[in-house]
Amino acid sequence: MTKSIGVGLIGNGFMGRAHANAWGAVNRFFTVKRHARMKTVAGLSEKRVGEFAARWGFDESTIDWRSMLEDDEIGLIDVTTENNKHAEMSVAALESGRNVCCEKPMAGTLEEARAMRNAARKASRRGLHAWVWFNYRRCPAVAFAHQLVKRGKLGRIFHVRAQYLQDWGGPDTPLLWRFIGKHAGSGAHGDLNAHIIDMARFVTGDELTEVTGAIEETFIKERRLVEGVGGPISGKGASRGKRMGRSTVDDCLMFMGRMKQGAVASFEATRLATGNQNANRLEINGEKGSLRFDFERMNALEWWDNTIDPGLRGWSRIMCTDADTHPYVENYWPAAHLIGYEHCFTSMCSDILRVLAGNKPVVPLPDFEDAYQTQRVLHAALLSAREKRPVKMSEVK
Amino acid sequence: MTKSIGVGLIGNGFMGRAHANAWGAVNRFFTVKRHARMKTVAGLSEKRVGEFAARWGFDESTIDWRSMLEDDEIGLIDVTTENNKHAEMSVAALESGRNVCCEKPMAGTLEEARAMRNAARKASRRGLHAWVWFNYRRCPAVAFAHQLVKRGKLGRIFHVRAQYLQDWGGPDTPLLWRFIGKHAGSGAHGDLNAHIIDMARFVTGDELTEVTGAIEETFIKERRLVEGVGGPISGKGASRGKRMGRSTVDDCLMFMGRMKQGAVASFEATRLATGNQNANRLEINGEKGSLRFDFERMNALEWWDNTIDPGLRGWSRIMCTDADTHPYVENYWPAAHLIGYEHCFTSMCSDILRVLAGNKPVVPLPDFEDAYQTQRVLHAALLSAREKRPVKMSEVK
Amino acid sequence: MTKSIGVGLIGNGFMGRAHANAWGAVNRFFTVKRHARMKTVAGLSEKRVGEFAARWGFDESTIDWRSMLEDDEIGLIDVTTENNKHAEMSVAALESGRNVCCEKPMAGTLEEARAMRNAARKASRRGLHAWVWFNYRRCPAVAFAHQLVKRGKLGRIFHVRAQYLQDWGGPDTPLLWRFIGKHAGSGAHGDLNAHIIDMARFVTGDELTEVTGAIEETFIKERRLVEGVGGPISGKGASRGKRMGRSTVDDCLMFMGRMKQGAVASFEATRLATGNQNANRLEINGEKGSLRFDFERMNALEWWDNTIDPGLRGWSRIMCTDADTHPYVENYWPAAHLIGYEHCFTSMCSDILRVLAGNKPVVPLPDFEDAYQTQRVLHAALLSAREKRPVKMSEVK
Amino acid sequence: MTKSIGVGLIGNGFMGRAHANAWGAVNRFFTVKRHARMKTVAGLSEKRVGEFAARWGFDESTIDWRSMLEDDEIGLIDVTTENNKHAEMSVAALESGRNVCCEKPMAGTLEEARAMRNAARKASRRGLHAWVWFNYRRCPAVAFAHQLVKRGKLGRIFHVRAQYLQDWGGPDTPLLWRFIGKHAGSGAHGDLNAHIIDMARFVTGDELTEVTGAIEETFIKERRLVEGVGGPISGKGASRGKRMGRSTVDDCLMFMGRMKQGAVASFEATRLATGNQNANRLEINGEKGSLRFDFERMNALEWWDNTIDPGLRGWSRIMCTDADTHPYVENYWPAAHLIGYEHCFTSMCSDILRVLAGNKPVVPLPDFEDAYQTQRVLHAALLSAREKRPVKMSEVK
Repeated sequence: MTKSIGVGLIGNGFMGRAHANAWGAVNRFFTVKRHARMKTVAGLSEKRVGEFAARWGFDESTIDWRSMLEDDEIGLIDVTTENNKHAEMSVAALESGRNVCCEKPMAGTLEEARAMRNAARKASRRGLHAWVWFNYRRCPAVAFAHQLVKRGKLGRIFHVRAQYLQDWGGPDTPLLWRFIGKHAGSGAHGDLNAHIIDMARFVTGDELTEVTGAIEETFIKERRLVEGVGGPISGKGASRGKRMGRSTVDDCLMFMGRMKQGAVASFEATRLATGNQNANRLEINGEKGSLRFDFERMNALEWWDNTIDPGLRGWSRIMCTDADTHPYVENYWPAAHLIGYEHCFTSMCSDILRVLAGNKPVVPLPDFEDAYQTQRVLHAALLSAREKRPVKMSEVK
Repeated sequence: MTKSIGVGLIGNGFMGRAHANAWGAVNRFFTVKRHARMKTVAGLSEKRVGEFAARWGFDESTIDWRSMLEDDEIGLIDVTTENNKHAEMSVAALESGRNVCCEKPMAGTLEEARAMRNAARKASRRGLHAWVWFNYRRCPAVAFAHQLVKRGKLGRIFHVRAQYLQDWGGPDTPLLWRFIGKHAGSGAHGDLNAHIIDMARFVTGDELTEVTGAIEETFIKERRLVEGVGGPISGKGASRGKRMGRSTVDDCLMFMGRMKQGAVASFEATRLATGNQNANRLEINGEKGSLRFDFERMNALEWWDNTIDPGLRGWSRIMCTDADTHPYVENYWPAAHLIGYEHCFTSMCSDILRVLAGNKPVVPLPDFEDAYQTQRVLHAALLSAREKRPVKMSEVK
Repeated sequence: MTKSIGVGLIGNGFMGRAHANAWGAVNRFFTVKRHARMKTVAGLSEKRVGEFAARWGFDESTIDWRSMLEDDEIGLIDVTTENNKHAEMSVAALESGRNVCCEKPMAGTLEEARAMRNAARKASRRGLHAWVWFNYRRCPAVAFAHQLVKRGKLGRIFHVRAQYLQDWGGPDTPLLWRFIGKHAGSGAHGDLNAHIIDMARFVTGDELTEVTGAIEETFIKERRLVEGVGGPISGKGASRGKRMGRSTVDDCLMFMGRMKQGAVASFEATRLATGNQNANRLEINGEKGSLRFDFERMNALEWWDNTIDPGLRGWSRIMCTDADTHPYVENYWPAAHLIGYEHCFTSMCSDILRVLAGNKPVVPLPDFEDAYQTQRVLHAALLSAREKRPVKMSEVK
Repeated sequence: MTKSIGVGLIGNGFMGRAHANAWGAVNRFFTVKRHARMKTVAGLSEKRVGEFAARWGFDESTIDWRSMLEDDEIGLIDVTTENNKHAEMSVAALESGRNVCCEKPMAGTLEEARAMRNAARKASRRGLHAWVWFNYRRCPAVAFAHQLVKRGKLGRIFHVRAQYLQDWGGPDTPLLWRFIGKHAGSGAHGDLNAHIIDMARFVTGDELTEVTGAIEETFIKERRLVEGVGGPISGKGASRGKRMGRSTVDDCLMFMGRMKQGAVASFEATRLATGNQNANRLEINGEKGSLRFDFERMNALEWWDNTIDPGLRGWSRIMCTDADTHPYVENYWPAAHLIGYEHCFTSMCSDILRVLAGNKPVVPLPDFEDAYQTQRVLHAALLSAREKRPVKMSEVK
């Protein structure tokens, strides 16, 4: 008999929509012992969140997210709000006895992330779980890459090269909230480096020991003010006549470092890499083989087998769409019927439900303990960029 | 006020599942004046179709598809059964006053397709619609290709090159129903050429005038019998000792022809193109530009602009994922967040609902009149292959 | 001790230049027992051929190609003139006791090709050799493909797909000699299909048994007259006022057929495939593996191994630039230092010299016997296109 | 009337061979007012250098390179020896009144490079020239990229991403001289970063102002000794029993920095990037457009035009093989007949000869002044890696 767990979603923006879709889809595509019941969605505008609930199939909506912590039918709180609310909401939810899944980056600051990690440790004694939505782990090609490394197919790893290149942040883009530090926390760094640090750690199974050097840059220092968003900064940042305001986040943050098992690694996140719209890329070079992934071709994994007949070696494009061999695929469509961005979320929902039902996930879920390590790297990179010096990971508690 | 239309789905196999998902998703992703109500699904096994209904969100299930034709709450019958049932079901549904959408190929034979076309003509006087599920038209890259040709970006077209290459039909694949003529009608021809003939016609806006030559081939003449499926042919086809049965469909059918406006065209459908799993490909070469599509990279369209500075000409990979400029995209995710196979179905549902609400579809829907032209080409190609001679389209009524 | 053989080159156009470069380069890059001595080059203009000889390093030049047949220091005649001269020159050279290498297509007509084949048979009794310059065989990726098929890596072959797509023949291109039948013999057919028929035969080791259907098309029927070239056709073809003349060759010829060992095959040659400048492509799908080649990326061969772990199968891009494993490479540069178009000619020179020295070539050379088979297929395809019927190869003697 | 200049080549290894080929080819492919006369080649072994001279067409050979400085018929000394000889030879040649072209990296140390630069400054007053062989500048795609930036097609540049990834330095590769510091100077850094620093400077026309962080790594610390090469280090480095010796150069050096006009830049050179054999890559992201180059596909340049209709934007693969529009191409073969690695050298020879004849090169040649800037960056990166701190370029005189 399938039991269900009530989901309480906080946030009805782009991410709220992606999660809502996934909670609906998981019940159809996957067969798990725990069924997701879309109980409540919380937002800021009564009208908008009500429409959202109707559209995506929640039983009800609210503008008081805390009310969900008193609803006995809700067992899981899903946080998709601005980064600076993650800690408050996640900790409250854990303390109220709910499981939590929170969007990335884990938090706006390391301190908040630490508080979340500590709350999760405490809650785990009561059998509760807390995860961060590093959705790309469940892109079949990425999950398969993780499995290949685990099977020893790469051998000793020499290089990790991670990039998340976007290009929507050109000079014509106005001063959206994402460019305002107090709302967004950081720019490309928290938004994009968070993903690729997690992916690099997840696929290699290794950890950074040092950030050796880093560059933080805000290329576009002033942006056109937008009605509504411009408000909060009109006092300080706006140059009156031109109706321009100051961008207070990074457009780009790149860093390099070393890993425990001897690899060197580089990371780059930017919103000004013209022509690269969603180039979430990872390349790993090992002694026995190499892997390459680019989200812009998310159904494929490139693989170089360095152990076969030298004359036949080449970069091989594996379509990770084979139900028999690639993770998650059997739940969707027949071989080579591509899946998309949203399926990573659906597959993560399925693993969350599996764990809540007492089973193991197909590949490891990023729990708060795990995600905290990514947050430490984010912090170390920022420190290195600002203090212009190498930062040992051991400095960052 | 949004009105709804009740959908009655026939079939709960792979295609039934793809349609069910789309009918559920369209209400969430799209805002149209007519809402899809998932009323009833009809199948062969009471247990299986009941579970299917529960999983995908139909109000009820039945094993008597004809009962749906008497249900006043059902306004649209969606047919996903074996090809040889398409005509019977579609005609009955139209005659009962229901709109119809039927899986491709339109029918097993030209005669059946003609009957369907005639029934649709008659029903149209009562305001009813009938379409065939050529889902790839609504792959954003394909819909965009159609728009580019319509905008005159290619100029005079010289070449149309269409291929649908799969590789699941190797000698180890057993004698599934798809290899048995009386169940499947044809092999790769009806299954795959149907798609690329439609795509070529849709994108070019042009029609074939002649099939000049064709080859039909069954490479693997005997296949291992499968329990359950082997049954019907054990008498005739099975070579007793070896437990093998005869495959009675084509593994491959390729043909070439000419088009009204002067282009030459080639088509190839096969299940034995090792390494090509779902290579639904179209290339069009025009005087002013060229286009290339490959479903294995479905989010991209390759475009060559022959009118720009010669030194800068090149094949350009357009990610057709921009909400502002590419069809259907605004309803899903932000720029460059890829969509998958299933979204083509969802987008087709949205256009069906638009038309039922009295609006125009984003790009033309393949109605029975339109789909009948594709069926004529399928027929002409088969005739050419079997009679080993050129066949004028005017021969095929 | 290295002996040398005197080379007499006929023609100082584009092809003469490509051959002259190769005869010079072979002595530097390859170590063979027979050294090429660049003795004489014959042309039409005394001044131009004299300059050519000086530039490319021939001892002398002439405007009387027949004089070379009396020069005891010349042992090999290399023919690069218009197709309709190939037979006369090759036969005369063979009869004079010289070895011959002649540009492709072998001849303008099947009859001429047969005469050449017969002359070569006769001359072979005197120990003479005659070859046709199918230079792409010695592109390392193509030679390696040949070796892989020979090693049995593909198993039974199902599909051969060959295309040679160019795009320089648009409506703005004037009436060059290549568009005038009596000079050029044919258009894309002889120029391009000759190459891909040879490549398909060479790589598969198989022969066509039938041309099942074919289309010949001249898309651009009138072209702007060019001073000098326009002359010969001004009487018949020129439409006075517009200064236009009739193109009397095909712009495109495509055909499909069957092969002895059971494969089906398609061929397409065109000069109007906008965006494809030199897309000499071959794909072969076998039971155990598949191969893909595109000259526009000539240093790479794509390979699909259908015998490995299914989860790891993918199209693998082999850079055929490894001196240890790929043919001809050791003579040029270190691994992955790409070579170009001209190196195919240089490598062919090296194999010619090896054979003249009594050794075996690295991969088989296309001798007149072999090239005649390609000429038969060209003829059959033309017959099929013009008589609009299937043509068995046995019809073509 | 064409005058000639006598070339004296020092070195008959891989690079000597590449240069010899280019000096021979330039006279055939290019028409320049100054003709290269291959006068003398100098080597270490009388026998080997004699054979080399005969094969590649030098008038004579010597084992005393200094003797060439007294030969009135030699006007240009071409240095291809070990890096630690570059300064001595180049300075002596310049002082003797010869023009010089010297292989990269300019020198083993910054001091030596400075001495070379100073010698060149002095010699320039006598009308002499001195260049460094950054051959990739004359890959048509790279030269074209330079021209596009100069034409303003990229606008403000945000990102420069340069990588030179090779993979021949795995643990099985023995202790070749390239792994021994006192012979090679450095490992991947001088060998590969030299190229990409020059390319980045050449294409952007910009200079680094700071190396912000750097990592140097020797992954494989001990390598199998090779007979002959092992000798010199057997005392210090060899671990007797195992017949292993210490590698004393970097396997990888990566660094990041800032450029004058505001771009951020990253560089990576490695010999252990399994699967990347000669991936000399450059990507530049500007406000109006972006460029991507990868030597493994050297005939193509990828270009993103950010100023066209948004719906049509995409990465465009320009085959830089069009005689009418792409630099150097008209001298080789017709459109889309690919060239290779060696042609970059030949084209550089042609520009050297043009300058010696008083004309301008097609794109700028890297003279000693220019190459010294690259050497400063190499030095700053090494300093940054070793002292673990940012290094301003102004620190490096």
